[in-house]
Amino acid sequence: MFRTSITIEWGDCDEAGIVFYPNYFYWFDCTFQRLIRHRGLSQRDIRQRFGAVTPIVQANAEFVAPARYDDVIDIDVSIARVNERRFRIDYAMSRTGKPVGQGYEIRSWALIDANGGIRGASIDDEFFALLCGAS
Amino acid sequence: MFRTSITIEWGDCDEAGIVFYPNYFYWFDCTFQRLIRHRGLSQRDIRQRFGAVTPIVQANAEFVAPARYDDVIDIDVSIARVNERRFRIDYAMSRTGKPVGQGYEIRSWALIDANGGIRGASIDDEFFALLCGAS
Amino acid sequence: MFRTSITIEWGDCDEAGIVFYPNYFYWFDCTFQRLIRHRGLSQRDIRQRFGAVTPIVQANAEFVAPARYDDVIDIDVSIARVNERRFRIDYAMSRTGKPVGQGYEIRSWALIDANGGIRGASIDDEFFALLCGAS
Amino acid sequence: MFRTSITIEWGDCDEAGIVFYPNYFYWFDCTFQRLIRHRGLSQRDIRQRFGAVTPIVQANAEFVAPARYDDVIDIDVSIARVNERRFRIDYAMSRTGKPVGQGYEIRSWALIDANGGIRGASIDDEFFALLCGAS
Repeated sequence: MFRTSITIEWGDCDEAGIVFYPNYFYWFDCTFQRLIRHRGLSQRDIRQRFGAVTPIVQANAEFVAPARYDDVIDIDVSIARVNERRFRIDYAMSRTGKPVGQGYEIRSWALIDANGGIRGASIDDEFFALLCGAS
Repeated sequence: MFRTSITIEWGDCDEAGIVFYPNYFYWFDCTFQRLIRHRGLSQRDIRQRFGAVTPIVQANAEFVAPARYDDVIDIDVSIARVNERRFRIDYAMSRTGKPVGQGYEIRSWALIDANGGIRGASIDDEFFALLCGAS
Repeated sequence: MFRTSITIEWGDCDEAGIVFYPNYFYWFDCTFQRLIRHRGLSQRDIRQRFGAVTPIVQANAEFVAPARYDDVIDIDVSIARVNERRFRIDYAMSRTGKPVGQGYEIRSWALIDANGGIRGASIDDEFFALLCGAS
Repeated sequence: MFRTSITIEWGDCDEAGIVFYPNYFYWFDCTFQRLIRHRGLSQRDIRQRFGAVTPIVQANAEFVAPARYDDVIDIDVSIARVNERRFRIDYAMSRTGKPVGQGYEIRSWALIDANGGIRGASIDDEFFALLCGAS
């Protein structure tokens, strides 16, 4: 439903010449940010318009082929509802059409209360429709 | 079976004042490196002594409480065998005894062949015993 | 002589909501890599074609205005020769035309010898002409 | 006047097997944070007690020898006043007594005003005495 790509930089690789894996999670997060921008939102909009944040609950990645400096990685994103309060963002990574790995983030919906604390809540319908590109 | 700790630095946190989550995976990797050093090994030793590397296959983390700048996070590590060719490193993170999150890495055992390529193989018994602190 | 841009990601900012400054150096390095790619080169080409590497000797940045999540930073690059063995890459950063900061890297030219060590040498003329876009 | 050390992690190095240089600036920042903690302060204390922040104005590093995975780098820190509103933190890095590089950060003193903006001001005497370990 949404595709973006990143180019692997020299500094993203380790001594073995392959991507140092925590960077994949940085790209997952970047991809989520790009998706919400693409939907006309941003972290600040979510905060101001919905009074909410989307804390990370779980992150997972599986790696099927190494990636190296100068490789262009395409990342396909899709969104799924986990339950009332949580949604999952799935990432499929490929290079020239061949799989590199896949992963997901599970994020919750949390409302910011008057003193700056947060508490879990049902995902806002308008937000979720926007996120899915359904509206 | 092994404990280490990290102090959260200013630059590890995002605008919300909590750890930017990909850093947890960096700390998982650092913890694995510290564990193998504690066992008298290093990435270079593994390469030279066993002609092997330990590629990451999967990484997972679940977050139960946010952590912030200046927090000291204790990380408890344990090792489990997944199958003939793979082992899992489990990480339990806490702050002053209260859980912050947990996660794991699954790594495979791969031998380096003559032309620098790698191929999966049964985990070397001596390596695995060393890793587990059993020898 | 060369311009690229980066978008500041959520994870690039600290608790104060501004870019955590070491990231600027990451972007300097990325920009240098993009420049050499734009010139038809890469770190691997430099190594294979010229038997050389370009070690960093000095890095400097001055910051004149803070940058934040979602900002697009344009980076203008120019190359200058420092001396026989060293060149400087200058970076000027701006956001919608207004300066954010500037900096430079000084890199040396070093030949890789038979046993994998490196030794400083006069910058290869062909490389330097390519880097400057003069050929 | 203050010494700390860091161990170079696997993920801190690039494909050439040496530290990816932006990490040195991350360690400079970490070292500054450790110094202020050592003096009984923190970024939050500076904010709460003095109503101030210490924005980075300039950062510089020179590299004299490469550093690699598993190396322990000692960092010696000293503080100097630049002018009424700015101070410099000097970092000297060594490994087993031999120099690896040196650098500095120049930071300004800025007061946080009622609407959250900041404006440059003369460095608070009490802060500076604390920072220098003189009180």
